[in-house]
Amino acid sequence: MLLYALLHLTGYDLPLEEIRRFRQWGSMTPGHPEYGLAPGVETTTGPLAQGFGAGVGMAIAAHHLAATFNRPGHPLLDSFVYGLVTDGDLMEGLASESASIAGHLGLGRLIYLYDDNRISIDGSTELSFTEDRGARFEAYGWQVLHVKDGTDVEAIDAAIRSARSDPRPSLIICRTTIGYGAPNKQGTAKAHGEPLGEEELLAAKRNLGWPAEPRFHIPDDVLAFFRAAIANGASLESEWLENLAAYRLDNPELGRELERRLAGELPDGWEQHLPSFEPDQKGLATRAASGKVLDALAPVLPELIGGSADLTPSNNTRFAGATDFQKETPRGRYLRFGIREHAMGAALNGIAAFGALRPYGGTFLVFYDYMRPAIRIAAISRFMPIYVFTHDSIGLGEDGPTHQPVEHLAALRAVPNLVVIRPADANEAVQAWQIALARRDGPTALALTRQTVPILHGTRERRGVARGAYVLADFGEAEITLMASGSELNLVMEAARRLAEDGRGVRVVSFPSWELFEQQDSEYRRSVFSGPRDRRLAVEAGVGMGWERYAGDVISLERYGASAPYKTIFEKLGFTVEHVLERARKLLSA
Amino acid sequence: MLLYALLHLTGYDLPLEEIRRFRQWGSMTPGHPEYGLAPGVETTTGPLAQGFGAGVGMAIAAHHLAATFNRPGHPLLDSFVYGLVTDGDLMEGLASESASIAGHLGLGRLIYLYDDNRISIDGSTELSFTEDRGARFEAYGWQVLHVKDGTDVEAIDAAIRSARSDPRPSLIICRTTIGYGAPNKQGTAKAHGEPLGEEELLAAKRNLGWPAEPRFHIPDDVLAFFRAAIANGASLESEWLENLAAYRLDNPELGRELERRLAGELPDGWEQHLPSFEPDQKGLATRAASGKVLDALAPVLPELIGGSADLTPSNNTRFAGATDFQKETPRGRYLRFGIREHAMGAALNGIAAFGALRPYGGTFLVFYDYMRPAIRIAAISRFMPIYVFTHDSIGLGEDGPTHQPVEHLAALRAVPNLVVIRPADANEAVQAWQIALARRDGPTALALTRQTVPILHGTRERRGVARGAYVLADFGEAEITLMASGSELNLVMEAARRLAEDGRGVRVVSFPSWELFEQQDSEYRRSVFSGPRDRRLAVEAGVGMGWERYAGDVISLERYGASAPYKTIFEKLGFTVEHVLERARKLLSA
Repeated sequence: MLLYALLHLTGYDLPLEEIRRFRQWGSMTPGHPEYGLAPGVETTTGPLAQGFGAGVGMAIAAHHLAATFNRPGHPLLDSFVYGLVTDGDLMEGLASESASIAGHLGLGRLIYLYDDNRISIDGSTELSFTEDRGARFEAYGWQVLHVKDGTDVEAIDAAIRSARSDPRPSLIICRTTIGYGAPNKQGTAKAHGEPLGEEELLAAKRNLGWPAEPRFHIPDDVLAFFRAAIANGASLESEWLENLAAYRLDNPELGRELERRLAGELPDGWEQHLPSFEPDQKGLATRAASGKVLDALAPVLPELIGGSADLTPSNNTRFAGATDFQKETPRGRYLRFGIREHAMGAALNGIAAFGALRPYGGTFLVFYDYMRPAIRIAAISRFMPIYVFTHDSIGLGEDGPTHQPVEHLAALRAVPNLVVIRPADANEAVQAWQIALARRDGPTALALTRQTVPILHGTRERRGVARGAYVLADFGEAEITLMASGSELNLVMEAARRLAEDGRGVRVVSFPSWELFEQQDSEYRRSVFSGPRDRRLAVEAGVGMGWERYAGDVISLERYGASAPYKTIFEKLGFTVEHVLERARKLLSA
Repeated sequence: MLLYALLHLTGYDLPLEEIRRFRQWGSMTPGHPEYGLAPGVETTTGPLAQGFGAGVGMAIAAHHLAATFNRPGHPLLDSFVYGLVTDGDLMEGLASESASIAGHLGLGRLIYLYDDNRISIDGSTELSFTEDRGARFEAYGWQVLHVKDGTDVEAIDAAIRSARSDPRPSLIICRTTIGYGAPNKQGTAKAHGEPLGEEELLAAKRNLGWPAEPRFHIPDDVLAFFRAAIANGASLESEWLENLAAYRLDNPELGRELERRLAGELPDGWEQHLPSFEPDQKGLATRAASGKVLDALAPVLPELIGGSADLTPSNNTRFAGATDFQKETPRGRYLRFGIREHAMGAALNGIAAFGALRPYGGTFLVFYDYMRPAIRIAAISRFMPIYVFTHDSIGLGEDGPTHQPVEHLAALRAVPNLVVIRPADANEAVQAWQIALARRDGPTALALTRQTVPILHGTRERRGVARGAYVLADFGEAEITLMASGSELNLVMEAARRLAEDGRGVRVVSFPSWELFEQQDSEYRRSVFSGPRDRRLAVEAGVGMGWERYAGDVISLERYGASAPYKTIFEKLGFTVEHVLERARKLLSA
């Protein structure tokens, strides 16, 4: 509500009526601010520390874009990132990870005001949060400043000036009173999450010397003071536009580039640079194919910026010729997130929200669990990060069950607005990247193999990933449909060949993405499947949950994996051509 | 491998053959240690910081049990918790949350040796991890000690002595060299996760003055030195058993209690204390019913220990008469986790692993995402924490989409070994707790409503939650089956009554738990559903994924919720008796 009130006061297009409709159906003012509803809400917050982490991503973007586009005499991009952070934010591990990265990277454009009110829902922070916050942030390499009285505007102003002139990120610890001005509830947990109530509201108004009515009262002088922001902002904007015009005169190419990127448009013909692969039984791991896509696109798409949570050599995320984004090399486009998956997820949100960049981040599929809350924020906000999740099944092998995803595809597919793509081979991996980059309405998760998988005939020509599922091959008049995603497609293809040798008609469907398939019209969807539901067999090396929507029988994995060479695991857990054949024959004879 | 080697050397039942079978199918030595395979592996680790967090839980258990059971002259329980932690652990937010709690609680029994080798998979920690770790831990309230040379056994010994005598948790920072002794790979990322290779292995052996063969060589003097641990351990054990005997003589009742709890057995007749509720249209929120269960059981089950991630008043997790577990009150059984869901999840694992306690923890269902990796560890390890996830749907209301679970039930149901129960009313909530507490083979998640739900006729007598799904009511000869979990059961019950008034035969199935249902025999499972799949309608206020297994049609929520009073949201998003009726009639007329 503080944010909504400030947006209204400073003249954003958020009428008082929307403030009155706080937390009501269809309003621009949900209980926690969501990106895309009210103007001026720059990211979605509410789940604690998500804003903290997104701010770090915004600051990465600000430093990188300034270093990339500014030219001598043209300091065009020079924004700072401000945020209010709370006790709750600081307790979350996500904030710790994010603060550590921000300190390491020396993100001086990042300035957080810490609302140090020492109250959370359970009561006093003495119950659970007694660490020395300032010392902790100093240990991360932040500048820590103190404002003893959080209502002392001049002290806050001075602190912000200090923060702006220091090369480190800054935490300004402002000692405040929660519910300040509500005489009976201030300083208590009662002022945290619930409405003050009629009586206390009136008492607060009395306390301020305000009239009881109108209920939504804005003193004229207050409004006039804040609304000066409109003229002030307009003048700053026209000054910046003049600077932009001068910049474009001196740097016409860069100017066009900046304009294109701010509009979120990809350069003409970028798709022509995508690699393609010949059928090859020996094949390629899809993570390696993904790496080749990045190598090919990095020079063409300068807006591509990404990294890995300390699995760079495994995720194949570092493109050829990349420079790390570090304190001394802010033009670098490769991010060393460290072993901080959650901070990576939140930073990708901030980079995406900032604009002019297309962020991606990698880890093992199993560890996406660590960043799940940030993926949800991306999905709600329709930000467009691309997640490079490699080692996407028991095919990971020897590291064992703690590192082998089993339930992860299902859990990702459950997330609204997220598109999950599990390509079956190198060509499908290329298409997956193409789709992810072309998306304008949400995040995309790629599930990629560690192990080598054959490059199948037809995946290059049919280019069916965009439809979610497609007919890869028909052997005769289909009596049965075998479908699979990812590395298991090769298994069903082999089984189909064997069935065909026995004179059976078989269709093979490659099914890399449920979400993309659901977006197709019903005619297409019907056309993919030949025959009734109980003549369709799906194969996936993960929990089967949800495949019942498409298939009458599912070969899946309803347990954790095992530590062994991956071929042994596939064999022992039933992901073999023989097992597919056995189940297919059973369906055919039923 | 270090852990396996030490277990073998010190005489645990882990033969050299199992060391040879490292990371092979069916061995006791998976790539990362899993609880329940090799003796001496006290918790599952590998996913970074999970061990760090579990250790904090173990230390909570150690302090609590010592305070609860020790008597003057009988310091029976006095164990310390030791762990090796790494750069990777310390980078994870989970470690930060856990360290902050440990410092706040003054867990002096916790001693971590930090393997400060400054190498991670990407290379030098200079790439991403340059904070002052020692200062950070001091800020959390830890004692921080330094061992300059991590191979200096006497210095480590001295540090451990200091750690044991200090009331704070201790971090002993040991400067080490990764791959120490492998002359060409030590100190580099090459020594992190991949085998050294034949050549480097031989070079390392030469370096140590060891023979090249046998490949698995243990010098006799080394083995003799380590195996002294057997006699030493036996003598310590018999000394402890003598102490136990003396303790039992002086404290017979407590002795029996300790024995019962160490065996993991619940006291006779505990179930008689469970509340039960009369049918009542006004009803009760299932979170409130859960709170009443805790109130009733807390005096009967002294092993119940739990808390909330700063949502105590919302989760109803603090039982009547509870005392907080704090530095000065270690006998307290209520844990103030702060806003640290992930640390809560990991601590619950450690408490469960320690034994003699049954831990539970609460947060909003939407925020279980923050602790998902810890739930996975519980499920793999078959630990038995109970998760109290309240505010389990759009029924949460005004806080809006960021706080409303939609995809969460699906994502939880995908986790192997986890039992998810979403009770429909107060009586089902009681049964859910009963099942969770009686479980011996894994964790249980309870999904509970914020909003009041009617207490339905039949839920008290039929007690069907244990079977996962059961027939709550039959109206005539069933032509259609309506099924639902949680708060939506009331909707389908009302719709069934209306259909019955129209003269249709309807069955109502309450479906609180898929996992429990799948454990029933096929005869029971068939008996629950009347009629074919396309005459079954499921209703759940979340994504429908997976319901296709049971129903031909699903009323679900394939989008994020909205910020509004909950009745409005239910109505606008189609969770109304009218909509259920409409869809049921369509199925009936198809």
